[in-house]
Amino acid sequence: MESPFQGRLDRVQRALREAKLDYLFLSISPDLFYLTGYTTFVSERLHLLVIPPEGRPTMVTPGFETETVEHLAGWIDIAGWLESEDPIALVRKTLAPRDRESPLRIAISDHTRAVFVLRMQASLPRAQFVPASQILAPMRRVKDGSELQILKEAQDMAVRALQRLVEGPFAGRMEKQVAADLRHHCEAVGLENAEGPLVGSGPNGASPHLAPTDRVIQRGEPVVIDFGAVHRGYYSDCTRTVHVGPPSAEFREVFEIVRLANHTALAAIRPGASCESVDRAARQVIKEAGYGESFTHRLGHGIGIEVHEEPYLVEGNKLLLEPNMTFTDEPGIYLAGKFGCRLEDVVAVSEGGSVKLTEYTHDLLIVA
Amino acid sequence: MESPFQGRLDRVQRALREAKLDYLFLSISPDLFYLTGYTTFVSERLHLLVIPPEGRPTMVTPGFETETVEHLAGWIDIAGWLESEDPIALVRKTLAPRDRESPLRIAISDHTRAVFVLRMQASLPRAQFVPASQILAPMRRVKDGSELQILKEAQDMAVRALQRLVEGPFAGRMEKQVAADLRHHCEAVGLENAEGPLVGSGPNGASPHLAPTDRVIQRGEPVVIDFGAVHRGYYSDCTRTVHVGPPSAEFREVFEIVRLANHTALAAIRPGASCESVDRAARQVIKEAGYGESFTHRLGHGIGIEVHEEPYLVEGNKLLLEPNMTFTDEPGIYLAGKFGCRLEDVVAVSEGGSVKLTEYTHDLLIVA
Repeated sequence: MESPFQGRLDRVQRALREAKLDYLFLSISPDLFYLTGYTTFVSERLHLLVIPPEGRPTMVTPGFETETVEHLAGWIDIAGWLESEDPIALVRKTLAPRDRESPLRIAISDHTRAVFVLRMQASLPRAQFVPASQILAPMRRVKDGSELQILKEAQDMAVRALQRLVEGPFAGRMEKQVAADLRHHCEAVGLENAEGPLVGSGPNGASPHLAPTDRVIQRGEPVVIDFGAVHRGYYSDCTRTVHVGPPSAEFREVFEIVRLANHTALAAIRPGASCESVDRAARQVIKEAGYGESFTHRLGHGIGIEVHEEPYLVEGNKLLLEPNMTFTDEPGIYLAGKFGCRLEDVVAVSEGGSVKLTEYTHDLLIVA
Repeated sequence: MESPFQGRLDRVQRALREAKLDYLFLSISPDLFYLTGYTTFVSERLHLLVIPPEGRPTMVTPGFETETVEHLAGWIDIAGWLESEDPIALVRKTLAPRDRESPLRIAISDHTRAVFVLRMQASLPRAQFVPASQILAPMRRVKDGSELQILKEAQDMAVRALQRLVEGPFAGRMEKQVAADLRHHCEAVGLENAEGPLVGSGPNGASPHLAPTDRVIQRGEPVVIDFGAVHRGYYSDCTRTVHVGPPSAEFREVFEIVRLANHTALAAIRPGASCESVDRAARQVIKEAGYGESFTHRLGHGIGIEVHEEPYLVEGNKLLLEPNMTFTDEPGIYLAGKFGCRLEDVVAVSEGGSVKLTEYTHDLLIVA
């Protein structure tokens, strides 16, 4: 069994014992990838790693796919189910016999499909299920050295993809075409799963999550470009708002406020600061400039195996930052009918403050 | 409100009344797309369409994204939650006041994340949750005319992508490179989300779901190519096993058995036949040829908004086929350490039997 997985399993089993949980059930999910390095496409076929508080885990998996997990056989048992069998019955069988009728407490990965949870609840009617994030989020939100390195590489690759994009044409092209270009640039630099870049031109940029449309980008418009992609299982996430030709005074003003909010948040990041305090630092800048109502979303989200994960930088989150937490700093201002502006970097908490993992200019990029 | 969504909502609400269900909860899912045409990326932010048995549905959605569902405002109410609010509390508020403490029966989309189900169960402790497939699968598995047309177009596009691929080189290239080529061909013909093509060469083909590797494809090897991608929200799915240079007698024999199994299944498809009977028809051919143990998976799966959906052609499924059900016919033989062979088409049940939606040769394709 290769590092880092043995250490992670040990920590998870210790956390299960401390939380008095009887099992941890992990379906195909970021949690499973974190603990085993294994993932595959999520489907109607149940794959479930059953982890007891002590001893060997068991992977319940489609029988015809057991080869894909055989490399884990050194430290987990593998139980395959046939196509005509009920996998939930097999999960039940993997539990210690005395447990099957007991009031168990089971943590299940947050991303597991509802249909599996409901079937498991029916099969283990005395069990109480809780989200696995209770156990795994505190581990996953603090990155180790190898994770930080991969995340840094992912952000560097994203910057290279974006640099290629901004050298290309914008005016006269559809948002969708620019998004396709960006996907290609991501692939060219070695990033995977760059499926959903956002390219919001002019008024479309005022809707923070609007998918790229057939709208033709015009000279004189800002374009919000937000994209994430995967390197060795870890996400990049980066937003820049570029301008096609010279900007208006109004856009220039908004751009400067967003930039200042981004920098103010960055300066507020340090071990011991609360998540909400960093959000507030950025929000205060935008409020004071008179655009408070136009910053409609939280400041940022943790990033790692998922593009959105803990910690969330949002009002109400009193979690205290720790070194090696990684998250985005992405304030924005959205003016309905006019334009949007967002500036997003990935940062890591350091011992003394923060380190930017996204190293790319904050100057306004004028594109053609 | 555009057709076909009004008709689908009417049918769903009637089905809720007949099943004595109090609500249908749809998160971002194929079910939601089926009923509204709307989808977006699944995330930690809850989007939930709350459908009562009569009257207007309510979409609970992140407040800063309400623009993306405003086109539905003619027939659904929209309830946005702020970033610092609990969306589950808002779901509870959308229910009729007398319902909040009642022993409700709620159907929830099968794909909803476990964490949301568990939180809803905590918020509505007297409610009983059941999978929404109970209501929606019987509707979704029988396609209407427009769905059949889109599915046909999707399969035609997939065939064009595959034709381009088989004209290109295989020998001396990594499986991953060939998979990347196929993704590009899919994009070139207009297919989306072609993220995970399978390219299994030589012994790797014997693992039906092995992801493409760095293995370099050799002359004299078969290569299993299996890929699905999306056109207007509906999936293609196609497998061909090609051969790099002339095949061995053993591969030729296996190929012929798989082809015969595919054709025998096709001939068994007709309204009133059970799903398992079609699986058995193909399996019998492979068993009689002495390879029964090597056909390790079910014969096929329904296809539509999901690449795998009902009906499943598998032993134990006594569901009877109806006209306009669509599914794959994909027998395979997998010889560990040697090679795999699979032949997959998408077919639709017709009044008199079946129609192949995948129109592409079943001859052995010899590639370079």
